[in-house]
Amino acid sequence: MNLLDNIRVVLVEPIFGGNIGSVCRAMNNNGITDLAIVKPRETTDWDDARKLSCNAKAQLEARKEFQTLEEAVADCTVVAATSARTGFYRDTAYSPKEFATIGLESAKDHKIALVFGREDKGLTNEELAVCTHIIQIPSSELYTSLNLSHAVYVCCYEMYCAAGIFQPSEEKAEEASTDIRERMFNVWREMMIETEFTHEQKLDHMMMGLRRIFTRGKLTVPDCKILMGLAKQSLWVTEQWKKKDTND
Amino acid sequence: MNLLDNIRVVLVEPIFGGNIGSVCRAMNNNGITDLAIVKPRETTDWDDARKLSCNAKAQLEARKEFQTLEEAVADCTVVAATSARTGFYRDTAYSPKEFATIGLESAKDHKIALVFGREDKGLTNEELAVCTHIIQIPSSELYTSLNLSHAVYVCCYEMYCAAGIFQPSEEKAEEASTDIRERMFNVWREMMIETEFTHEQKLDHMMMGLRRIFTRGKLTVPDCKILMGLAKQSLWVTEQWKKKDTND
Repeated sequence: MNLLDNIRVVLVEPIFGGNIGSVCRAMNNNGITDLAIVKPRETTDWDDARKLSCNAKAQLEARKEFQTLEEAVADCTVVAATSARTGFYRDTAYSPKEFATIGLESAKDHKIALVFGREDKGLTNEELAVCTHIIQIPSSELYTSLNLSHAVYVCCYEMYCAAGIFQPSEEKAEEASTDIRERMFNVWREMMIETEFTHEQKLDHMMMGLRRIFTRGKLTVPDCKILMGLAKQSLWVTEQWKKKDTND
Repeated sequence: MNLLDNIRVVLVEPIFGGNIGSVCRAMNNNGITDLAIVKPRETTDWDDARKLSCNAKAQLEARKEFQTLEEAVADCTVVAATSARTGFYRDTAYSPKEFATIGLESAKDHKIALVFGREDKGLTNEELAVCTHIIQIPSSELYTSLNLSHAVYVCCYEMYCAAGIFQPSEEKAEEASTDIRERMFNVWREMMIETEFTHEQKLDHMMMGLRRIFTRGKLTVPDCKILMGLAKQSLWVTEQWKKKDTND
């Protein structure tokens, strides 16, 4: 059982079809698929919704519709409302990241809900009363009005990250051992002298600079092979040049 | 000097005006205002861009335009590309949160850039080559294609959070001291007996339940006043009822 399957996104009276579609996509990107709409409007442009849902059309079509928020979250334990306003009992808010930990704990055994209000008027006090938690999305005090799908994205993203499912791509190449690294540096050392890039006196200083540049991040075996090849080629060219000099 | 003023969002050949507008709004929500567009398309619907930028129109109008990515980031030190694909040298990617720390460190003294590719084709290998870091946004392996403004939102949100500027709303009401809390519990205790809700034998057990319920979160002074008033009123009603009983 996937924890994220227990998370329901609830949109209350959304105005724009485009936003509903974008919300489906935002949910899907974060492994969340249960969408409920409270009081769908007759004026909603569902073609726009389908267009903006992209490959998340299945989620859009599978949405559940309810006439009240209470019905939409009837089977949920934790019910979190997002709210930009502060005021009467809205002061004790959680950040999306803080809430993710609380929400996932409940989602182990129960359905939970993330509730988002109307684009223009948010949630009413009556709707907020049904919610157990309030989420406040950090945003610049100069511009606090978020697009609906952006608000959904951030909340779903924090739940997805907290669920610990994501496996980031990792460097597939083997990290280079000291042995491989030093063999490579030895060729560079030789090349620096042979190309007459530096004198013996300055060699250690130059090598230290090079070591710092090359080993600032993880150096892999293929990285070492490229670097080794490059220095060897430069040595070969130097050899040709010196031969030519002798021939002349 | 605000750290966030040193962050530039660069969109390479974006297709949809609506996305460009949404990106402006996403940036503004997170206190980031420097927008650059590489190779703007003649087919872009700028009316749509203006509509979706909402109150971030000023940012949209102030955008800079360039013919190459190299020109757009010429003055930047750290240049981070977002990339969904993995492959040749794209394996060592940072999460938006990891990158936020690295990026802000450089943004103390230098301009840095967040680069986003075309909606359909992302960034070319030549464009990726100009970048110093790759950001991979955690997303469900079942659905990894993000809307452009959602990708921008998450990256800007992590930078904004990491900048530590945001002051969350806090409970303004004073937290209740033990003294106030215990006076309130004493009235409930009396009320439980007077209303004949429970017997003396079960009183401690019931009180423990009530204490657990009321003090699970922070209990404020106004909370205590509401609870105290409620119990007192119930005591008053009980008194009236008992008087009436005596009068009958």
